Amino acid sequence: MSKTLPRILLTGFDPFGGETINPSWEAARALHGRRIGGHRVVARQIPTEFAASLRLLKAALRETAPAIVLGVGQAGGRTQLSLERVAINLQDARIPDNAGAQPIDEPVIAGAPAAYFSTLPLKAMLAALHEAGVPAAISHTAGTYVCNHLAYAMLHWAARKRGVRAGFIHIPWLPLQAASRHGAPSMALEEMVRGLEIALRVAAVTPRDIRRGAGTLD
Amino acid sequence: MSKTLPRILLTGFDPFGGETINPSWEAARALHGRRIGGHRVVARQIPTEFAASLRLLKAALRETAPAIVLGVGQAGGRTQLSLERVAINLQDARIPDNAGAQPIDEPVIAGAPAAYFSTLPLKAMLAALHEAGVPAAISHTAGTYVCNHLAYAMLHWAARKRGVRAGFIHIPWLPLQAASRHGAPSMALEEMVRGLEIALRVAAVTPRDIRRGAGTLD
Amino acid sequence: MSKTLPRILLTGFDPFGGETINPSWEAARALHGRRIGGHRVVARQIPTEFAASLRLLKAALRETAPAIVLGVGQAGGRTQLSLERVAINLQDARIPDNAGAQPIDEPVIAGAPAAYFSTLPLKAMLAALHEAGVPAAISHTAGTYVCNHLAYAMLHWAARKRGVRAGFIHIPWLPLQAASRHGAPSMALEEMVRGLEIALRVAAVTPRDIRRGAGTLD
Amino acid sequence: MSKTLPRILLTGFDPFGGETINPSWEAARALHGRRIGGHRVVARQIPTEFAASLRLLKAALRETAPAIVLGVGQAGGRTQLSLERVAINLQDARIPDNAGAQPIDEPVIAGAPAAYFSTLPLKAMLAALHEAGVPAAISHTAGTYVCNHLAYAMLHWAARKRGVRAGFIHIPWLPLQAASRHGAPSMALEEMVRGLEIALRVAAVTPRDIRRGAGTLD
Repeated sequence: MSKTLPRILLTGFDPFGGETINPSWEAARALHGRRIGGHRVVARQIPTEFAASLRLLKAALRETAPAIVLGVGQAGGRTQLSLERVAINLQDARIPDNAGAQPIDEPVIAGAPAAYFSTLPLKAMLAALHEAGVPAAISHTAGTYVCNHLAYAMLHWAARKRGVRAGFIHIPWLPLQAASRHGAPSMALEEMVRGLEIALRVAAVTPRDIRRGAGTLD
Repeated sequence: MSKTLPRILLTGFDPFGGETINPSWEAARALHGRRIGGHRVVARQIPTEFAASLRLLKAALRETAPAIVLGVGQAGGRTQLSLERVAINLQDARIPDNAGAQPIDEPVIAGAPAAYFSTLPLKAMLAALHEAGVPAAISHTAGTYVCNHLAYAMLHWAARKRGVRAGFIHIPWLPLQAASRHGAPSMALEEMVRGLEIALRVAAVTPRDIRRGAGTLD
Repeated sequence: MSKTLPRILLTGFDPFGGETINPSWEAARALHGRRIGGHRVVARQIPTEFAASLRLLKAALRETAPAIVLGVGQAGGRTQLSLERVAINLQDARIPDNAGAQPIDEPVIAGAPAAYFSTLPLKAMLAALHEAGVPAAISHTAGTYVCNHLAYAMLHWAARKRGVRAGFIHIPWLPLQAASRHGAPSMALEEMVRGLEIALRVAAVTPRDIRRGAGTLD
Repeated sequence: MSKTLPRILLTGFDPFGGETINPSWEAARALHGRRIGGHRVVARQIPTEFAASLRLLKAALRETAPAIVLGVGQAGGRTQLSLERVAINLQDARIPDNAGAQPIDEPVIAGAPAAYFSTLPLKAMLAALHEAGVPAAISHTAGTYVCNHLAYAMLHWAARKRGVRAGFIHIPWLPLQAASRHGAPSMALEEMVRGLEIALRVAAVTPRDIRRGAGTLD
């Protein structure tokens, strides 16, 4: 019975920065209710606001008690799915968030560690994505805006839950967002959804990550 | 009766540079036989070879007597559909072509003009693509490899045919080509096909291009 | 006696686009009066204006009757010296020029050819620059703004003068222009000047260009 | 007397990845012995080797007992001085180091925190660099190779020393390294040295960092 399946909490954000759509929520909601690797996906929209995003995250975590948590966020200008390896305890907002807040050089959670590593099997996820022909790479910075903020809070929460896996994936603009921006890269929603499904399946069924180089020189 | 429709000759290339697929041919053949703007699309594959490409082009032009000629080519690393504004009378091959030829600093057609401008209504095509949410931009260089070679030959041919419109569009890698190339941009085949169909429709039904800036400072 | 030396006309532009300095003029004037390869450099500043630039060019050509003409222009965002291979007969201004004019889809010179190739020995110049450790590449588009406009006019003029060599080189922003632009590339003025001097020397003493690939796939 | 001045330990690396020069050592040694902001600079070369780099760092720290530690490393492809905000406890080598080691997914220091933030006044340093016209930006990833490795170890060491400031700056290729790499950005050694001197002066004399946004959305 589906209610007894362990949950995947999959979050996306609402539009920000003048956009009228956010591909992260479009992709997340497309997977809502799907059964992946013996888990049930529960999608939740998170506001692109430093303060409210953490409140909504806590409520969603309490409600769903997930075995896997994956945050998804828009990274305009990136070309591929970016599997974030680390989130840092820093807010440094280049533009105001959707509530008008623009924190500079403040921690996400005061007194907490400088960073958390993703606990998803990123190398196995990357291998599966490449095998399936989905453009993807490991990233070592999730920025310093609301995406990193949420990712850090997810990992902070998961660090105290035995057996819970958590992580964050940045996704490019949709074609319609990039259309008239000269030279802007994009990715089709279908490709994003396909990639997220593959990533979640690997996360759900891979007990232990593989060892495979995906580093950067700088 | 369809045989009486004016023709659009739409060309794509075979794979080169170690690839096993060329998105330009995949996109072109997806439109083969389609009726667009009162024209019938005839798709033809062209080899990525300096010499043979012009022979095949001539045969296809003779066979189809097209009203519109659009060449399509892969531009790995580009992010959007690139509507080429100009083709130059130069071969300067960075890698050998599929026949092993690597011409350097030779003209496409000896004694012919230094360049030809596309005679497609590029600004109207660009406006329609942006309106439809397809990432696209005007480009002022088609390179110096087989793509520019074919584009130049098309425009040279069209220059002597009254009323024939010709041009070239570069397209990005497919997602599966970009998948494991770190940071490589790509575009879904469906998006490319949708964009080419829009571009061809505008080319077929727009008697006179619109005036709209799409230049670059350098 | 120095007055009898053949002349090199070296032009740079005044600042545009909100800048207070234009590296092309800084570099050109640094070489004014220098003897290079048996020629005397005469530097002239050209306004970043479509109309006035051609008037000033004509006056400078008449005054100096040069054996070599090299235009230099700022290409903000480029990383290296760009040896322009071709200039096209097109004005398509993304921003107004310094006189407020913003021509769109107009020829530089009505009725003239679609393009001219540079008549400088670009491959020999490139080889010498690389040998000297100066970052440089051949470019196949000079844009559609005042730089291409001037370059086209220079080549149009040189096409009717037997034995005159002409061409154009784009240069990056200076470090101080790039300083607070996130991620903007730049080049030191000394490096630009050194590169231009090498380029001019090769242009002055190389009777016939070398054959060496420097093409692009797209 | 100069012996009584507090020390700045400034490190650079030896060449790696097929290069014959490493700008980080060229820049560091240019400042060796200089008095900056009431401190004396001691430059030390560090091998681009995961294991040996930490041994050499420890010896240099013991020897110099510095008040400020700044590591400098080459980041080929970057365009500006990159003031690294954070170093992570991860080795993931894309290429073997100079000793042939290629660690994958191993911590820099087992059992140590996931990351350390730089304790240099980065925002004040950035403001001073921009004021002086030196291209610079804050970076939120130092990669996963020997640079991040050394930076992490520096910050780990400094975390246990009251009043010691530590951090890392990535620098671009030199022009001669970028010369024949198509499109590769670079920076003159003089500009790097000037920038590092400004950065060190600010680090030496600024008791408390300023508050100024320099974040990234992703």
